[in-house]
Formats: sequence, structure tokens, C-alpha cells
Amino acid sequence: MATTEKAADTEYGKEAPPAAAPPPPPKPSGTTIPPIVDVALRALVFAATLTSLLVFVTSKQTIHLGPRSMEAKFDHSPAFIYFVVALSVAGLYSLLTTLASISIIQKPAFSNTFLLYFAFWDVLILGLVASATGAAGSVAYIGLRGNKHVQWQKVCNVFDKYCRHIGGSLAVSLFASVLLVLLIWLSVLTIHKRIPK
Amino acid sequence: MATTEKAADTEYGKEAPPAAAPPPPPKPSGTTIPPIVDVALRALVFAATLTSLLVFVTSKQTIHLGPRSMEAKFDHSPAFIYFVVALSVAGLYSLLTTLASISIIQKPAFSNTFLLYFAFWDVLILGLVASATGAAGSVAYIGLRGNKHVQWQKVCNVFDKYCRHIGGSLAVSLFASVLLVLLIWLSVLTIHKRIPK
Repeated sequence: MATTEKAADTEYGKEAPPAAAPPPPPKPSGTTIPPIVDVALRALVFAATLTSLLVFVTSKQTIHLGPRSMEAKFDHSPAFIYFVVALSVAGLYSLLTTLASISIIQKPAFSNTFLLYFAFWDVLILGLVASATGAAGSVAYIGLRGNKHVQWQKVCNVFDKYCRHIGGSLAVSLFASVLLVLLIWLSVLTIHKRIPK
Repeated sequence: MATTEKAADTEYGKEAPPAAAPPPPPKPSGTTIPPIVDVALRALVFAATLTSLLVFVTSKQTIHLGPRSMEAKFDHSPAFIYFVVALSVAGLYSLLTTLASISIIQKPAFSNTFLLYFAFWDVLILGLVASATGAAGSVAYIGLRGNKHVQWQKVCNVFDKYCRHIGGSLAVSLFASVLLVLLIWLSVLTIHKRIPK
């Protein structure tokens, strides 16, 4: 890397003398990604996490079996509680960064620094959402299929609406994870494109 | 901050004409991260995933309860199988990228492009490892505590060695996730530092 850095430095250093006569060709603007894509993706992450959360927390179902009634609620499982907390954090984060991203369009001077911060935080939020989706997904799968090795009975044959809600919510949170990956890629690519060739 | 960034932009725009006379001061090399850090982190991810895998797959335990024997193996749970597959992919990936990262030290010309590819793939592998850790972790938690709402009995009071192995393995895979976050941060920061100020 010592050499690259040196090479890059030399190129950068060399750029100055000829630049005086013919200015360096401007970067083709067609290849840069318009900042509105970042805003749109972040707004979509917000919409996805909010949808996922609402569908998840409204999954409550009560079943009447003869004299006694059984209730299924998301807070009966620690993994589901973790999911709700993680998606809430991700939803709040995506709302705030959507606003921040809009403000950058208006003040592009901050752009480089913000892109760096966005990439840093997006990675943490991705880890949070991915782990929460995995955690809730594996519990939901046991609910759907059971596990005969340890005699954990499936519950989705009884609590059908509950399981449909959780399944739908998990699909949307998986979509949110994919969007977060795209967002990080976008930030990294945008930063990379600003290195002079 | 507006002032700094604006100042930086103006400097960059204005740079060409005055740069012809005095070349811009070289970037302080003390702030760049030595590429060996990337190699070391990747090697550490490899060591962590390999350790986690080995501890996980050796978790098999057989209990003799009177006349019948019960066995606990990792492939009794789909979430645990997903964990093993995900960690295997991450282990192989980290081995290959450790070698790639070493080769970049020797041929630094490719450095920028490789950093971009590394960041892209690291994000996917982070998503994989985080979701697998979440999935296996939530099943392990039910094994440890049970869930009285759905009458899933805990099994770790019986399969103690099995659960110790899985718990240890999960702790190491969580550590691998943290290392992957650091690796992505490192790549993004290194790319960011190459944007001329």
C-alpha cells in the first residue's frame, strides 16, 4: 500500500502542473448516483420497518377451546421482543437519516462527511435488523413446524392469524435488510467514485 | 462544519491554478491505516468462525435415562443447520479474503478496487453471520429457558455439555460479527481518506 499511496500521491502531485494548461477532464456526471436515490431508499426502509412493526404488534390472537381461552401475543417470546425493539430502533434511525439525507441535497458541502457517518451507522443497523429477523424467524419456524426431537409442539395450526401476521412481518423486515445492504453499497460506491482516477 | 466543508470544496475547486506554483502539502501519512490491520482482522474473522464451527459441530451429547437413550445433535434444528452453513461460508470467505488482502500489500495498484469489492462482500457476509447468530441464539435461548406460553420445555438442564458448546460457539460468532463490522468500517474509512481534501 505504501507504493499505492505514493503512486496516488505522485499522480495527485503530477496533476497540478498540467492542470494549469488544460483542466483535468470533468468526471462523467452520468456515472454518479443522484443523491435522491439515497433519500428514496431510506424512506423505503422507514416504510418497511414501520409496516413490519405494525403487522407484528397487531398479531395478538385469542382462541377459545371449550371453557378456557388461550392467547398468543408477541411479548410471549424474548426473541419477538428483541425483534420489536430492533425494528423500532431501525425505524427511528431510518426516519432521522431520511431527513438528514434530504438536508444534504440542499447543502451538498457536508456530503462526504455524512456519507461516511451514514455508512458507519447503516452497518450497525443492518447487523441489528438481520440478527432480529434471524432470531424471530427461527422461533416462528418452530411455531410453524415444531421440533419433534425436543418435543416442542407447533402452534401455528391453532394460532393461524398470529402466525400469518408474524410471517408477513418477517418478510417485510427481510426486505428492509436487503434495502440496508443496498444503502451501504450506495454510500461506499459514492465515496469510492470521489477518489480521483 | 459548513465552513470547513465549504472551505474544503472551494480549495479543491481553486486548487488547480495556484497548485501549479506550490504543490499541495502531502497528506500526513500518520493518519492512514496500515493495510496489515485489514489482513489481521480478516485472519481473526477466519480464526473466530473456524473456532465457532468446531465447537458447534462437536456439541453432540447422548444421555442415558434408564432403558432409553436420548441424543442431542446440532442437525436436530433447522436454525442450527443454517448457522453451520452460514459460518462455513463466512469462514471460507474470510480465508480467501485474508489471502487477497495479503496479495494487495504486495501489489498495491489494485488497492482501491479491492477495497470496494471487500466492502461489498463484507456487508453480505455480515448480514449472513448476524442473522445466523440471531437464529441459533433464539433457539438456544428456548433450549435454556423454555417457553411456558407454548409449553416448549427447556432441554439444557439435561443436555448440559450440548448447551455449553452451543453457547460458547454463539459467543465466538457474535465476536466474528463485531470483527466484520470493524472490517467494513475500516474499508469505508480507507476509501474515504483517499478523497482529496
